[in-house]
Amino acid sequence: MTGVIGFIGLGNMGEPMVMNLLKAGFQVKVYNRTPEKTKAVVEAGAEQVNRPADAAAPGGIVITMVANDQAVEELVMGPNGFGEVLGQGGIHLSMSTIAPATSRKLATYHQEHGSQYVASPVFGRPEAAAAQKLNILSSGSSVAKERVKHIQDALGQRVFDVGEEPESANVIKLGGNFMIMAAMEAMAEAFNLAEKNGIDRQLAAEIYASTLFNCTVYQGYGQMIAKKQFEPAGFQLALGLKDCNLVLEEANSTQTPMPLAGLLHNRLLASVAKNRGNQDWAALTRIALEEAGLE
Amino acid sequence: MTGVIGFIGLGNMGEPMVMNLLKAGFQVKVYNRTPEKTKAVVEAGAEQVNRPADAAAPGGIVITMVANDQAVEELVMGPNGFGEVLGQGGIHLSMSTIAPATSRKLATYHQEHGSQYVASPVFGRPEAAAAQKLNILSSGSSVAKERVKHIQDALGQRVFDVGEEPESANVIKLGGNFMIMAAMEAMAEAFNLAEKNGIDRQLAAEIYASTLFNCTVYQGYGQMIAKKQFEPAGFQLALGLKDCNLVLEEANSTQTPMPLAGLLHNRLLASVAKNRGNQDWAALTRIALEEAGLE
Repeated sequence: MTGVIGFIGLGNMGEPMVMNLLKAGFQVKVYNRTPEKTKAVVEAGAEQVNRPADAAAPGGIVITMVANDQAVEELVMGPNGFGEVLGQGGIHLSMSTIAPATSRKLATYHQEHGSQYVASPVFGRPEAAAAQKLNILSSGSSVAKERVKHIQDALGQRVFDVGEEPESANVIKLGGNFMIMAAMEAMAEAFNLAEKNGIDRQLAAEIYASTLFNCTVYQGYGQMIAKKQFEPAGFQLALGLKDCNLVLEEANSTQTPMPLAGLLHNRLLASVAKNRGNQDWAALTRIALEEAGLE
Repeated sequence: MTGVIGFIGLGNMGEPMVMNLLKAGFQVKVYNRTPEKTKAVVEAGAEQVNRPADAAAPGGIVITMVANDQAVEELVMGPNGFGEVLGQGGIHLSMSTIAPATSRKLATYHQEHGSQYVASPVFGRPEAAAAQKLNILSSGSSVAKERVKHIQDALGQRVFDVGEEPESANVIKLGGNFMIMAAMEAMAEAFNLAEKNGIDRQLAAEIYASTLFNCTVYQGYGQMIAKKQFEPAGFQLALGLKDCNLVLEEANSTQTPMPLAGLLHNRLLASVAKNRGNQDWAALTRIALEEAGLE
């Protein structure tokens, strides 16, 4: 079954990823809870199935790219889940951003069923997925990682091996999202200070993004924060809060004080309380704007 | 006197900057409180003078690149200061990182004496200064900025016009240093979380610096923070604390709440209390290491 891959989760990320797999010559069986969302990939050659279990074949590979931990667990272990189908030699390539603890749990489940688990969250937004420019993290047993490498190569520009522990890739992914949110709050406070001194926020954003911080995070989010425009949402603030909670849970369980993550958590929580969960996560910077009397 | 420039402050930054001015064909009169430090530039063709006042000529241009606000004020208004020499048409090009309030004060002084003031702090470390790669901020009257532009061009790769208000360039510079310190604390907390999960800090640093954060601040300081090596100091922590205090003073006077700057201030203050003022400012991340039991 080497050429056939199951792919579950046809959201903003999943759809372009399946397109790239098809382009690379893989046969792809797709499942999505809302079946209508598979339309584009089915037209491009994917085969739609009606249950998660049908996306898997014994000894095959199934990719999950869904919204949260609970969804992944249900797809594997729930009714009609694919966990019992994979069996010996099967691999679950788990690409969603989920808790390290969930990866540990899933890895144990697969081990008990003869299958293997590779945690493989990605850095990159839907545009990067479409352009095959994702940066892909990968942790799990060497044998399993080696077997999925050609699939990851078809999805991104680079694969980073984060080791053998199933949860390591998730820890790195969560740390990256935390660092993005920290950069947003830092920009917000610096741009506010500039505006309060009569300096154009846009000019401030451009100076920083073309000198000290000439990288995508500062360039892209810098524009949103300078312009105070947080819609449409590329990545929803509610999901940012979810990730920040996962960071703090992991910080707690490993005894790693993270005061900056705590500050960001309060920003996100206040934002959700103000009904901004559907805005882009850069909207966490509106709290600093409001505090400074700038909104 | 167009071709002659006064340059005061031959520290790590000043020395390579004077070298570049000489290379560009300017005649440079140099003054430094510790006269021995002028040796290299004098050998390269600069003329040493014995009082700040002697670095200036009526209607000429004097550059200051010294450690702090008090030093700049004394050079201009103190005994043997150059402030009264410049006179009509004279320009003080002030390139140190100082408080916006000090720039306002100096601008007023110069206005009262017929001379003009341009605030022009830079982004870049000594290596960048030597390579003529500084990014130079510039604020003040258009006429004055225009007159010093050819000098700034000889010192850096790009000049950013931050407007007419004398203090604007200082506000942007302070905001940039604040953002660097915020990035350091964010990296520290993320790397600590990785280490507590059994992931190599160095690997974490490399993943972030080659994906989301592929810019110098994260690449350079990321290495120091991953390796827990904070000496030799490129920029001393005590100076970082000075800048953070300036940020908070400006935040206070303009009513701009900056909770992240407050958090960083506590990190820096604890670091100085632990006698780390002479280490690189990236050593502010040792507090997070200690809190996590990792040092």
